Amino acid sequence: MLDNLTLLTDFYQLTMMQGYFFNGKLNDKATFDLFYRKNPFGNGYVVMAGLQQVVEYITTINVTDEDADYLRSLGLKEAFVQWFKNFKFRGNVYAIPEGTIVFPGEPLIMVDGTLMESQFIETTSLCLINHQSLIATKASRIVEASKHIRCLEFGLRRAQGPDGGFYGARASYIGGFSSTSNVKAGKAFGIPVSGTMAHSWVMSFDSELSSFEAYAYTFPENAILLVDTYDTLKSGIPNAITVFTKLMKDISSVGDAFRKGKYGIRIDSGDLAVLTIEARKMLDAAGFSDAIISVSNDLDENTIESLILQDACIDVAGVGTKNITAYDCPALGGVYKLSSINGKPKMKISENIEKVTNPGRKQVYRITNNDGMIIADLITLASEVIDPTQPLHLMDEKDPWKNMILKPGTFVATPLLQPVIINGQSVMQQRTTAEIRQYCIESKKTLWPAYLRNKNPHIMKVNVSNELYDLKRQLLFAAKSQAPA
Amino acid sequence: MLDNLTLLTDFYQLTMMQGYFFNGKLNDKATFDLFYRKNPFGNGYVVMAGLQQVVEYITTINVTDEDADYLRSLGLKEAFVQWFKNFKFRGNVYAIPEGTIVFPGEPLIMVDGTLMESQFIETTSLCLINHQSLIATKASRIVEASKHIRCLEFGLRRAQGPDGGFYGARASYIGGFSSTSNVKAGKAFGIPVSGTMAHSWVMSFDSELSSFEAYAYTFPENAILLVDTYDTLKSGIPNAITVFTKLMKDISSVGDAFRKGKYGIRIDSGDLAVLTIEARKMLDAAGFSDAIISVSNDLDENTIESLILQDACIDVAGVGTKNITAYDCPALGGVYKLSSINGKPKMKISENIEKVTNPGRKQVYRITNNDGMIIADLITLASEVIDPTQPLHLMDEKDPWKNMILKPGTFVATPLLQPVIINGQSVMQQRTTAEIRQYCIESKKTLWPAYLRNKNPHIMKVNVSNELYDLKRQLLFAAKSQAPA
Repeated sequence: MLDNLTLLTDFYQLTMMQGYFFNGKLNDKATFDLFYRKNPFGNGYVVMAGLQQVVEYITTINVTDEDADYLRSLGLKEAFVQWFKNFKFRGNVYAIPEGTIVFPGEPLIMVDGTLMESQFIETTSLCLINHQSLIATKASRIVEASKHIRCLEFGLRRAQGPDGGFYGARASYIGGFSSTSNVKAGKAFGIPVSGTMAHSWVMSFDSELSSFEAYAYTFPENAILLVDTYDTLKSGIPNAITVFTKLMKDISSVGDAFRKGKYGIRIDSGDLAVLTIEARKMLDAAGFSDAIISVSNDLDENTIESLILQDACIDVAGVGTKNITAYDCPALGGVYKLSSINGKPKMKISENIEKVTNPGRKQVYRITNNDGMIIADLITLASEVIDPTQPLHLMDEKDPWKNMILKPGTFVATPLLQPVIINGQSVMQQRTTAEIRQYCIESKKTLWPAYLRNKNPHIMKVNVSNELYDLKRQLLFAAKSQAPA
Repeated sequence: MLDNLTLLTDFYQLTMMQGYFFNGKLNDKATFDLFYRKNPFGNGYVVMAGLQQVVEYITTINVTDEDADYLRSLGLKEAFVQWFKNFKFRGNVYAIPEGTIVFPGEPLIMVDGTLMESQFIETTSLCLINHQSLIATKASRIVEASKHIRCLEFGLRRAQGPDGGFYGARASYIGGFSSTSNVKAGKAFGIPVSGTMAHSWVMSFDSELSSFEAYAYTFPENAILLVDTYDTLKSGIPNAITVFTKLMKDISSVGDAFRKGKYGIRIDSGDLAVLTIEARKMLDAAGFSDAIISVSNDLDENTIESLILQDACIDVAGVGTKNITAYDCPALGGVYKLSSINGKPKMKISENIEKVTNPGRKQVYRITNNDGMIIADLITLASEVIDPTQPLHLMDEKDPWKNMILKPGTFVATPLLQPVIINGQSVMQQRTTAEIRQYCIESKKTLWPAYLRNKNPHIMKVNVSNELYDLKRQLLFAAKSQAPA
């Protein structure tokens, strides 16, 4: 992470803050919602990710003297800069835990504080959530397509900057990848790290065979050999088999390590369906039926699905560029919208119905059946209580004839927004990245397969409560009645 | 930038290093080339960017005790970890300066050092160059399409992580953008910073008019008002005109500042062609013909070109998501390939002719005519000298009948690769980001418009010298003659 993210913000946050400062709004209160409007990749859901970094960012805001000098140089006024030098976020933040499956329109984060502090944290919070949720979702799609194949993240070299690789590795792991090549991410987040050799290893020896032998004798416990530098079927695999045969018979401790460890091949080019099927036959015929076959080369959920349909023999898929940049949809359009000023609900009016926001302080309830499967999400005002002894009405605000009534005893309503920062201090439950990954796996089990599939998934119902619906209508009519002719 | 990038690498760099360490290759020498194979976006060129960060990264490699402990936990051997604890890059790096227009296949960076140190720096060097060159190129396309319109970068909230926004802002400026909203990038790189207000500013006041008045009186020198919160033509622009009229007549120092400063409107939604044409008429009719009209809303080179063709009245375009993520091609496929081991040229053989690499230590010459316009780039062996008194033969290695002879006196050959690190120490010419941006503007002037255009550009010739061509043929035949049957 950048050493100090405090100034990593849009300048308009600071001009607005100076404006509020000089216009008597220093102590105004505000609530903002962070949410997104549209699932990326034609997917049916998003995997919430990036919250840990948001909480770290918000709780470590620190304006240095050098920062203050720079803001003066931009023309901000001395009285405001003096005030800003001591700026900290002292409000409250509520959020849906990382790893949760979430849907369009529901608040992923709700920020309650002074207008100034709530406004200030917009840009970096969006950046962190948009990025990691996007990559976690892409990774989840790839994992869904990969079935029994384990996915290894190795996109750092094509990532959009160091953080793109670093946090992208974290998000990929949350989304279900098994490991990363990224050593720094492995260290920071406890992600299993993997990696063996590049073509340059093979080329730096006089022959492919001697390069394989040197590698396997150095790493007998993990002898995965890259077999496509010269000719996969005629040279690479035969040479690998020669080395495996030699090690299998080796009576030294190196042979012991080999026999106890993992070994196999990696193919990084060519027709991966044809080559892996042939490779499997050759390895099996030589008695190496437990040799791992690992592949790479611009893979994504579509190519992996195609390889599986062709009966390719693959144990591990190394996935780089297409995952780490979310290649087919490289941005999640999360937004951050004002929902309340000084306790008064606010709503953005737009002729585009999808851009009308939900006013007021809110909660999101996940409505599940008694088997834990999601029926719908319900956005309510924060003050509402769902009474489990009463029938629950669910209605689509755009298509009011789409509605259902759930009888008491047939549903469970679980609030998703939980406090993560109170009075500026983190109260977030500390979980390891592995725990968040596991939480995501469990969260996906609450979706019927039709919602989880990569192509043309069912669209989860995200409804608003009757109270919230009435408030929206009321604010809309009030705005229209005041509108210019 | 991440606090310490040393471990930001693929694990296979470390396993290979350990392998070299235990296989007598500690002092082997190697040369690697960093290059890309295909222009992104259907563009005719790439803008070289990210080199300053590569040099900073390579010259600050530092393995901490904690890093060493982590590497032990990954199973690396004690003798190697002990050696790696003192690892520094002590080799040489040659590179094409940032801001230079570059083409596929030519070495952008050449690394000369021990095999181990040259191998180690692969991943992060690629990450930094791939990212910034990609964004600088995207930004250059947007600037080309924008003609007289100034481009403001404000994509941080949709960037792929903090670095994506931070270095993306730098790259956008190098590519020709005029300013950024990113305060931290502005501070670090001296980029002009701009920003005014969000919709939440307008919504936090009781009326749009009072919000405009408050803003303009706080920032009379830069009163750009966001006019699309309620109704652009019926409410936003009339209210803006009311405030401008009041300030124009204001006899206080606030009025003076307004009359001396910049002012205008921003439109962030709706039909920008129709709205800006109407806005221009309304502002002109009210006597505000110097009011700036600024627009935003998912802009890129295509939408800006379309707006210009529709005679939209735009002075400033705020460009976010599509630029900061290089939305239509979010990765540049730069690679890093071994070209020499212990002085012996090496070449990767592939059945795919585009994947065959150029062996040996090399130089890239830019061949220009006497007016400074680029005729071709020529890749030579580093040992070659171009004699300006002799005719220069240029030949396409894939289509040998495409060739030309330049007479002495009609061309200038300028070497592009310059030393940036010698014996591990930076010798790079220090330039400000503004100077690099200016260098890019000058570099683009050496391209005829047909090469510079966004759609179906001419493709620049990148030729190899006769000596390099002969070496490739020789290595290829040698490899084939040793190949298995």
